[in-house]
Amino acid sequence: MGSRWLVPIPRDYVAAGPTPDMNVDADLSALREYLASAGVDGYLIDDDAEDADQRYVSGFTAPDPYQTLVTRDGGVHLLVSGLEYGRASTDADADSVTRRAAYDYQELVADHGQYEGTVRTIAAFLADRGVDSIAVPHAFPTGTADGLRERGIDVAVEREGIVADIRATKTDWEIEQIRESQRANQAAMARAEELIATADVEDGILVRDGEPLTSERVKEEIEVTLLRHGCALDETIVACGADGADPHDRGSGPLEPDELIVIDIFPRDKETGYFADMTRTFARGDPGAEARRRYEVTREAYEAALGAVEAGVTGADVHGVACDVIERAGYETLRSDPNTDTGFIHSTGHGVGLDIHEQPSVAPAGGELEPGHVISIEPGIYDPAVGGVRIEDLVVVTENGYENLTDYRVALEPTAD
Amino acid sequence: MGSRWLVPIPRDYVAAGPTPDMNVDADLSALREYLASAGVDGYLIDDDAEDADQRYVSGFTAPDPYQTLVTRDGGVHLLVSGLEYGRASTDADADSVTRRAAYDYQELVADHGQYEGTVRTIAAFLADRGVDSIAVPHAFPTGTADGLRERGIDVAVEREGIVADIRATKTDWEIEQIRESQRANQAAMARAEELIATADVEDGILVRDGEPLTSERVKEEIEVTLLRHGCALDETIVACGADGADPHDRGSGPLEPDELIVIDIFPRDKETGYFADMTRTFARGDPGAEARRRYEVTREAYEAALGAVEAGVTGADVHGVACDVIERAGYETLRSDPNTDTGFIHSTGHGVGLDIHEQPSVAPAGGELEPGHVISIEPGIYDPAVGGVRIEDLVVVTENGYENLTDYRVALEPTAD
Repeated sequence: MGSRWLVPIPRDYVAAGPTPDMNVDADLSALREYLASAGVDGYLIDDDAEDADQRYVSGFTAPDPYQTLVTRDGGVHLLVSGLEYGRASTDADADSVTRRAAYDYQELVADHGQYEGTVRTIAAFLADRGVDSIAVPHAFPTGTADGLRERGIDVAVEREGIVADIRATKTDWEIEQIRESQRANQAAMARAEELIATADVEDGILVRDGEPLTSERVKEEIEVTLLRHGCALDETIVACGADGADPHDRGSGPLEPDELIVIDIFPRDKETGYFADMTRTFARGDPGAEARRRYEVTREAYEAALGAVEAGVTGADVHGVACDVIERAGYETLRSDPNTDTGFIHSTGHGVGLDIHEQPSVAPAGGELEPGHVISIEPGIYDPAVGGVRIEDLVVVTENGYENLTDYRVALEPTAD
Repeated sequence: MGSRWLVPIPRDYVAAGPTPDMNVDADLSALREYLASAGVDGYLIDDDAEDADQRYVSGFTAPDPYQTLVTRDGGVHLLVSGLEYGRASTDADADSVTRRAAYDYQELVADHGQYEGTVRTIAAFLADRGVDSIAVPHAFPTGTADGLRERGIDVAVEREGIVADIRATKTDWEIEQIRESQRANQAAMARAEELIATADVEDGILVRDGEPLTSERVKEEIEVTLLRHGCALDETIVACGADGADPHDRGSGPLEPDELIVIDIFPRDKETGYFADMTRTFARGDPGAEARRRYEVTREAYEAALGAVEAGVTGADVHGVACDVIERAGYETLRSDPNTDTGFIHSTGHGVGLDIHEQPSVAPAGGELEPGHVISIEPGIYDPAVGGVRIEDLVVVTENGYENLTDYRVALEPTAD
């Protein structure tokens, strides 16, 4: 993002992004209340499509930076390039869309340079709406903030992450998008499971079509399957044996029989931008009694944590339930030993939406769960000597429990349906 | 990016990104000279893997934010989470890598909150290196800038885009990465061309396997081919007929015979992050005399522009050469009519590297080309009544001309090899 802003982007042909039918129906009342209590005129985002907050608030996405202003009356106002104007006018969930040209952007850049020209354009956009003071997100560009300050606008950073909090509670439309991404995820998991289930075993490794079945091959098939279902991902985890015991390891090399294989897939819908997340652990052959025991304990922790999910319970509570099960079975957790490298060495879950990691947290510091929160539940037990186990579903918190967005069998033995 | 920083990210398993063997061998002397002349102690980037400047300067990439400091002696110093420390120590092109824990990050966050705790950690990191004043990129987070200022550090925005300028000149290693991405691109283009060449024509549309051959199907095959070659993309263009006459249109629906079909692919290598870019225009059957003439004029402009490329010539000059050819043939350009909606309605090219659009610009304001600049050359002619034509190669500027990174036939009639 950094440099791109400063590069004089030519008028060319990749300015228009996808045109998803964003229909978040976001409730920005908490942001309105913040603006009123902080006594500032508006909340301004200056970023591009990579910023989930901006996408959420504006109902719009574009590859190049644009600006979204939320005024104290709750109005959402976009400032976009001429290239994006038509699409923004049609697609954005905004009360107004204004071209930069309305403030003589090109002339200002020609006269004052890219930097100062852009700042003056944004300042004119704010002045047009009577906005003298703004709150901005932490990541707001310092270049824009300083430039606006030089032009007499009061700029203060909103330090609590209000938009992240608003985003934590999903609307029905958002839940449907996440469910759709999880469906694609299920298809990809089924493909991976099938590859493992139907591989031959030769010389201590899994083999398909005469070639070793490697972590890399399975990941490629996962990605192709996701692509066929409208999703993409940057990373995925197919980690066998000791690799799987390091939750940070993506896995590499031939997959082996009689070993635990952790598969964790977190795809994003290419159109809507919503993520999904799911993990299963498989073993071809017999991974041994201790691995099977760990699988059953992880499954029990996963079921207990799911059973604890409901509105009003905290993420910390749910995490505690998973820790209870795992500690009771004799394994360490970060609660029983903050420095342990084995056992349950991560948190139980996290919010999922336009970011793969977002609020709320299902961890020691996790706050109260609310209806509409979408969270992963994903306990695991790790030890290089045994391998890793993790089981993960994605659920929506409801008043009395949860609705599972995941429809995928939990079983250690892989099968090809 | 915005919200993610504020979300207390749980200790979990997606912190480690890929571990590409980054070997940019970047020449940061221009940045050192800037620091000396501006009289500031260091240049600080606070961003994540999405920031190409940070990736370039640090030779490292991570999904969560980390900090890169360039000191006046040219030293590169990284501040990373404990999760990233091992990988950063091995992979980064840095003089030092420091864990946040070295400055009691967790304790500071526990005592002062995420926001203030992070700022204090970064301030301690700077103090450790005797840095009291820093220059930052435009996109540097205002939250960090304001927090550091509150702690007495002088923070000024570097407004010229020095790192973007440095990045414009590619090292040999970078050129090889871009060439590799373009090879994947060629495979994807060949697949698309083959689909079009071998489709049946039924009821006025192209058909394969009994189903309409749509823009969407061809795009999916392009993406799968790229994936098989280690590349990914967010967007691609397969635009037929009037769709192709709008350079912003990605294309949709059944492809038709006797129409121009513009295919523009800009993939990114998943490991190295380097982009490629190529466009070809095809037609099954006969698109008509006017379309064929436009194809030949575009080809002539493309060849003339390529012929003009060499070190010392400006991007503006090269753009002018393309405009000359197209205007001489009787079509409008933005030079002959700044408001035209038909003819040559974009610039001739742009730099390509870790960003798909970067310096230098091959456009009316484009400055001097230098050896090692990697630029696209992509004139086109557009009119909804006829369709669109664009032909694009990716080249490296040399002292006496250019080296073409593209090895793909230029022909209107698609063939399946």
